[in-house]
Amino acid sequence: MSKYQELKERVLKANKDLVKAGLVILTWGNASEIDRNLGVVAIKPSGVSYDEMKVEDVVVTDLEGRVIEGKLNPSSDLLSHLALYKAFPEIGGVVHTHSTYATASAQAGKDIPCYGTTHADTFYGAIPVTRALTKEEVEKDYELNSGLVIVEHFKNNNLDVMACPAALIRNHAPFTWGKDVFKAVENSIILEEVAKMTALTLRFNKDAEPAPQYLQDKHYFRKHGANAYYGQKKINR
Amino acid sequence: MSKYQELKERVLKANKDLVKAGLVILTWGNASEIDRNLGVVAIKPSGVSYDEMKVEDVVVTDLEGRVIEGKLNPSSDLLSHLALYKAFPEIGGVVHTHSTYATASAQAGKDIPCYGTTHADTFYGAIPVTRALTKEEVEKDYELNSGLVIVEHFKNNNLDVMACPAALIRNHAPFTWGKDVFKAVENSIILEEVAKMTALTLRFNKDAEPAPQYLQDKHYFRKHGANAYYGQKKINR
Amino acid sequence: MSKYQELKERVLKANKDLVKAGLVILTWGNASEIDRNLGVVAIKPSGVSYDEMKVEDVVVTDLEGRVIEGKLNPSSDLLSHLALYKAFPEIGGVVHTHSTYATASAQAGKDIPCYGTTHADTFYGAIPVTRALTKEEVEKDYELNSGLVIVEHFKNNNLDVMACPAALIRNHAPFTWGKDVFKAVENSIILEEVAKMTALTLRFNKDAEPAPQYLQDKHYFRKHGANAYYGQKKINR
Amino acid sequence: MSKYQELKERVLKANKDLVKAGLVILTWGNASEIDRNLGVVAIKPSGVSYDEMKVEDVVVTDLEGRVIEGKLNPSSDLLSHLALYKAFPEIGGVVHTHSTYATASAQAGKDIPCYGTTHADTFYGAIPVTRALTKEEVEKDYELNSGLVIVEHFKNNNLDVMACPAALIRNHAPFTWGKDVFKAVENSIILEEVAKMTALTLRFNKDAEPAPQYLQDKHYFRKHGANAYYGQKKINR
Repeated sequence: MSKYQELKERVLKANKDLVKAGLVILTWGNASEIDRNLGVVAIKPSGVSYDEMKVEDVVVTDLEGRVIEGKLNPSSDLLSHLALYKAFPEIGGVVHTHSTYATASAQAGKDIPCYGTTHADTFYGAIPVTRALTKEEVEKDYELNSGLVIVEHFKNNNLDVMACPAALIRNHAPFTWGKDVFKAVENSIILEEVAKMTALTLRFNKDAEPAPQYLQDKHYFRKHGANAYYGQKKINR
Repeated sequence: MSKYQELKERVLKANKDLVKAGLVILTWGNASEIDRNLGVVAIKPSGVSYDEMKVEDVVVTDLEGRVIEGKLNPSSDLLSHLALYKAFPEIGGVVHTHSTYATASAQAGKDIPCYGTTHADTFYGAIPVTRALTKEEVEKDYELNSGLVIVEHFKNNNLDVMACPAALIRNHAPFTWGKDVFKAVENSIILEEVAKMTALTLRFNKDAEPAPQYLQDKHYFRKHGANAYYGQKKINR
Repeated sequence: MSKYQELKERVLKANKDLVKAGLVILTWGNASEIDRNLGVVAIKPSGVSYDEMKVEDVVVTDLEGRVIEGKLNPSSDLLSHLALYKAFPEIGGVVHTHSTYATASAQAGKDIPCYGTTHADTFYGAIPVTRALTKEEVEKDYELNSGLVIVEHFKNNNLDVMACPAALIRNHAPFTWGKDVFKAVENSIILEEVAKMTALTLRFNKDAEPAPQYLQDKHYFRKHGANAYYGQKKINR
Repeated sequence: MSKYQELKERVLKANKDLVKAGLVILTWGNASEIDRNLGVVAIKPSGVSYDEMKVEDVVVTDLEGRVIEGKLNPSSDLLSHLALYKAFPEIGGVVHTHSTYATASAQAGKDIPCYGTTHADTFYGAIPVTRALTKEEVEKDYELNSGLVIVEHFKNNNLDVMACPAALIRNHAPFTWGKDVFKAVENSIILEEVAKMTALTLRFNKDAEPAPQYLQDKHYFRKHGANAYYGQKKINR
């Protein structure tokens, strides 16, 4: 049995979870996870039907994108994933979808402001949309540059990649990430719900204001960091 | 067997009903019920997956929030529920969700006016949005204050808590209640549908006017109070 | 066995079809069918859960609303149905729902104009919204008057009740009808889809114009009347 | 067994796939496929319930619309399909639906601009809406003219029918096509999703601009033509 077996099974499940959550139709979207000890990433194969996808179809590559295990082409977005793994050592899983509301926001070229606690529970501050890629960046090394434009945005704006585990690539679609691939999937689910609520908030009140910063702080930090008290952290089950 | 067994089973079912009704994703939302004779409240545990939740995971507390039965942390929103039970002796069940349309309305900071009979059948008058909590109220005793800001709104505006069994906490999300936990769940379902209809009403006609008061009266009172004639109240089955 | 057995079975199925089609939640909505030879109407009981509703719960009344068979109260909207049956001898089934988009249009006080062939295939011309009921009409004989205000609208505007088998009661919700109860259910399904398309049409183009009259004529009359050629009418199967 | 058996089975499955994908309700919509060697087209029968539709109900006609096999009337839209097959030798399957968002865009009389990569992956450039049919074109040979107005639009605007496998007939609804009937179904699914994203993009930003042409080129050509590298084309599985 492959030493990457468990990694591949996790990645297969995470990809199928995206379909179950209604975030992916046809072959759109891909999830990957990194094993930093082994120096490998497992990712969805390109253009394969989710129904037929089996664990042996998951592709394992090194951090330069060379296939180590698997007979199929990896997702065409592999190099975007690798750019994120290299820039951000904290992250263990990456997800890319074309989920409807988040993609519409990316197409609109609009950040998703924090209008309430649903957003603040997971994302600290606005979820950013990147600048457009240049013609040169699109024509050469497009997928790599799609990852790098996210990295650039977070570095230039001093954003904490774990406190805002999502970004929208302008005119394209969202990426999310997390400590592992299942957390990245969860963040995709939350991003889509938050994007939908944002559209509706603006329909109820086109001049809606972001939630007060102290309320954003409260919700984010009751779930994250040293003083978190949400969930079952302090109790053995 | 625990003397709270039936109470816990009801609360478990009510929490799972929220997921079935599409009002709750992930671990968002919580339902509780009070037994005023025994002086206890049963509530969902914090951050536990709905799929895995079992009756023994339901937490029983006293009215000060001290755990009486159960090994898990109660919902982090417990103190909001308790504030409502203490202020309003008529209510027997409380539900909190982040259902999409109602939450968007809370984020927009807008009351939900009564545009028609769907609303008037359950809610007498506009469904109110509370004031924002202050920085002090958020930083200290946040969950308690989230309940108290609802109580304040109803008292200051002389609203009848049973005639309008829902409120939106500004920049946060809705709470509903009822004579028992299942009625509170039903009111959450109706609130979400009414919030959706409100968004669509405004899309069809941004200058839409509330329904005439006499129509609101007719629909509310044909289902509630001494002269109600909807349903099977007068017939033995 | 009751001589109304088949009628009651049809009405039971039609009511459950409304739930399956997503037009009805909780106990909202009701379907009825008339047997003009027997001079009776079968209708849903009031306020009974659709899951538990059995054929013996369906209520049979005469045209004055007196219960002939059944132990439960008939739908509180019975008198609206009877007003339609009495005024329009062509109709055999009536359905009332609070389906989301059609109800929103009723709340907005807006007719649904014919923007395209989806509408014209079933509804000839705009689907009308009635005037508001007066205070007197609401306070006395409300359900009867809810039917009569539809009748008034069709008579005053010389509308053909079979060519436009739907109306919206202002600030309330839609009624549909048809030659039998299943056709009335189908018309409710189509009404809701057309109302949704109307909302979206106006979102794409707030100045959208109705479809040309000759296109409306073509689509309506290829499915209705002596020259219809849609479907399998000319072929024995 | 009929020599058209496989063709008919494919067409039956494609029609049922439209229902599964949520693009078709009641009997709305139809899919066909051509066998150019045999000179025949198989198409859905007119007005038959999808649940009851069996392979022997599929109708086989020649390119003039004369029934060769089958006891039922072919879809009333048959002549629209045939006009497309005759004008465009590249296409092997045609689908017509009244899917909600695409139909709303047709009713609004609005092209669907390319706002992002989801669109560009399948459709090169805006998805066009045709001119309105004239009174004469509607009253005589309506279904034929519905096909011809699409052909006219593509010829007059020098559009490549395989690079933009969809069109909206003004005040009516969409047609899509592809190398075979399943590709035509897939294009209907993508069209509906793109139309929905377009509505939402405009809600987030009413002044949204189309994606840069170089980004549209990149996405379209990484999936189509000689230099495509998406999917598993270069790998034997």
